[in-house]
Amino acid sequence: MPVKIIGIDPGSNITGYGIIEISGSSHKAISWGCFRLKRKTLADRLLQLHEELSEIIQIFQPNEAAIESVFMSKYPDAALKLGHARGTAMVTMAKHGLKVAEYAPRQIKQSVACYGAAGKDQVSTMVMRLLGIKEKPIYDATDALAISICHAHMRSSKLLAAK
Amino acid sequence: MPVKIIGIDPGSNITGYGIIEISGSSHKAISWGCFRLKRKTLADRLLQLHEELSEIIQIFQPNEAAIESVFMSKYPDAALKLGHARGTAMVTMAKHGLKVAEYAPRQIKQSVACYGAAGKDQVSTMVMRLLGIKEKPIYDATDALAISICHAHMRSSKLLAAK
Repeated sequence: MPVKIIGIDPGSNITGYGIIEISGSSHKAISWGCFRLKRKTLADRLLQLHEELSEIIQIFQPNEAAIESVFMSKYPDAALKLGHARGTAMVTMAKHGLKVAEYAPRQIKQSVACYGAAGKDQVSTMVMRLLGIKEKPIYDATDALAISICHAHMRSSKLLAAK
Repeated sequence: MPVKIIGIDPGSNITGYGIIEISGSSHKAISWGCFRLKRKTLADRLLQLHEELSEIIQIFQPNEAAIESVFMSKYPDAALKLGHARGTAMVTMAKHGLKVAEYAPRQIKQSVACYGAAGKDQVSTMVMRLLGIKEKPIYDATDALAISICHAHMRSSKLLAAK
């Protein structure tokens, strides 16, 4: 039975999302894009993220969810800002009954580009190739699709290991 | 007309809340306590915070909300963790139609203890005195009540200035 996975690349201004459908070993891109948080106050920007992500979840009905686990910033202020968006995305997905898997950036890059220190452009190129996407999406979206692909690989490994 | 204010002191493990009712220049404590996030995964802990805070909002129907604005940690990891809880609390309050005011720690301490560098114990003692609370609450709750009191002072100043 096909499974839909939503991947989220959270950011304090732009949060990318990417939904793929997997069936056996085949992957298909379903939807991708980003939420640009533009409202005036922080609380309202987080509400915008919650509302727009909820809408995407309601439309595409993903079965599983994944997000990047580690943030390497040296700056506490940037980490706090990212935490707001990441927490909002996680609670929104949990509220819709989705279990949220977390993967380290290296693991995600390794999964799509076979190289843990791959650059954004390499990740983007590989995501487009793996999913047969013709027009280059914004990096936030390809990063999010990469997270979905990583989750697809990890769950297959787990399923195989459980057999 | 009396106005109910909810103050939130977010934390990655414990989030304090404090609700006061103001009528003219009088303040009354309505409810205070904390949410101890104990579920297994981060997404589930944030969902727990969202659910328990939503319940408190539904029970006490506050009209206005306030939260601490600045986090002084030197550690990005701690800031990211706090951001998750802070973002979840903010989006939950915004979802319930509450406008969320933000105040710096110094401003909050100044507001209740007349001293911006007051310690937790001083803040707690002053909050108890100002609100006539007999039994010492957990610091997370007195900090949250201090945030509500700070908002009460700031909105009165604004209302006076607008006259």
